[in-house]
Amino acid sequence: MAGELWLEDLHVGHRFRTDVYDLTADDITEFASKWDPQPFHVSEETARETFFQGLAASGWHTAAITMRLLVTSGMPLANGIIGAGGEVAWPTATRPGDRLHVEGEVVDVHTTKLNTQRGFVTIAYDTVNQDGEVRQSSKARLLAFAKPQ
Amino acid sequence: MAGELWLEDLHVGHRFRTDVYDLTADDITEFASKWDPQPFHVSEETARETFFQGLAASGWHTAAITMRLLVTSGMPLANGIIGAGGEVAWPTATRPGDRLHVEGEVVDVHTTKLNTQRGFVTIAYDTVNQDGEVRQSSKARLLAFAKPQ
Repeated sequence: MAGELWLEDLHVGHRFRTDVYDLTADDITEFASKWDPQPFHVSEETARETFFQGLAASGWHTAAITMRLLVTSGMPLANGIIGAGGEVAWPTATRPGDRLHVEGEVVDVHTTKLNTQRGFVTIAYDTVNQDGEVRQSSKARLLAFAKPQ
Repeated sequence: MAGELWLEDLHVGHRFRTDVYDLTADDITEFASKWDPQPFHVSEETARETFFQGLAASGWHTAAITMRLLVTSGMPLANGIIGAGGEVAWPTATRPGDRLHVEGEVVDVHTTKLNTQRGFVTIAYDTVNQDGEVRQSSKARLLAFAKPQ
């Protein structure tokens, strides 16, 4: 696949920016009904009197959208985006009408002499709406594979 | 709601254990087709020759299942489970046939004098299958509300 990034292609400071994802109220309530069925996520009506004072997306929905954007238009890692783990924070609530994109950069590349076939790349990235509001701030440790000789 | 937990009810060491969620191959591919469309998540066939050597759930799918279990049968926090952020790690791949439950405990309760109406509770929890294999290990910082006087 053209443009695939191998371990040796990755460097601290490498930046990326994805396409956008337009979030609707229906999308929010559909995801939440299955995975996070709480009043502030499942309907405009039940959300009104809650902490969020209106419909807000589940943080795990924002995380799922973020992954979709990374996979479809983020860093084209060779062999795919395989996460070992990471951190997420949701500084503001994701709302209906948000046009989200993800932007970030490589903050660490870790290789070992024990296994020269693969390493880890750590990326730090934000999920941001059309007004520059950060909906999710993340750091993930991903597998990176050395180019087969 | 009976059994609701307010900030003053929460103490370090408070443990919880959820019901179970039975994961099917169809569930894995359906979630991944939308949110994490990579060969090792979207079909048994395309997964075979990958790093995972067979179908594996997206880590974000495991995270979504974990949230569903927490919301429906985890700690009944008053006003809901509202996360500010946290950490996730996926030490092993989640597979079709996994019967998952979540177990964990409160590891920190944070209150301030600035705002006595709410605080934060940190929980550490694992998502575990029927054989005791840990599929996800998490820590989350959740809002906790003081009981209205």
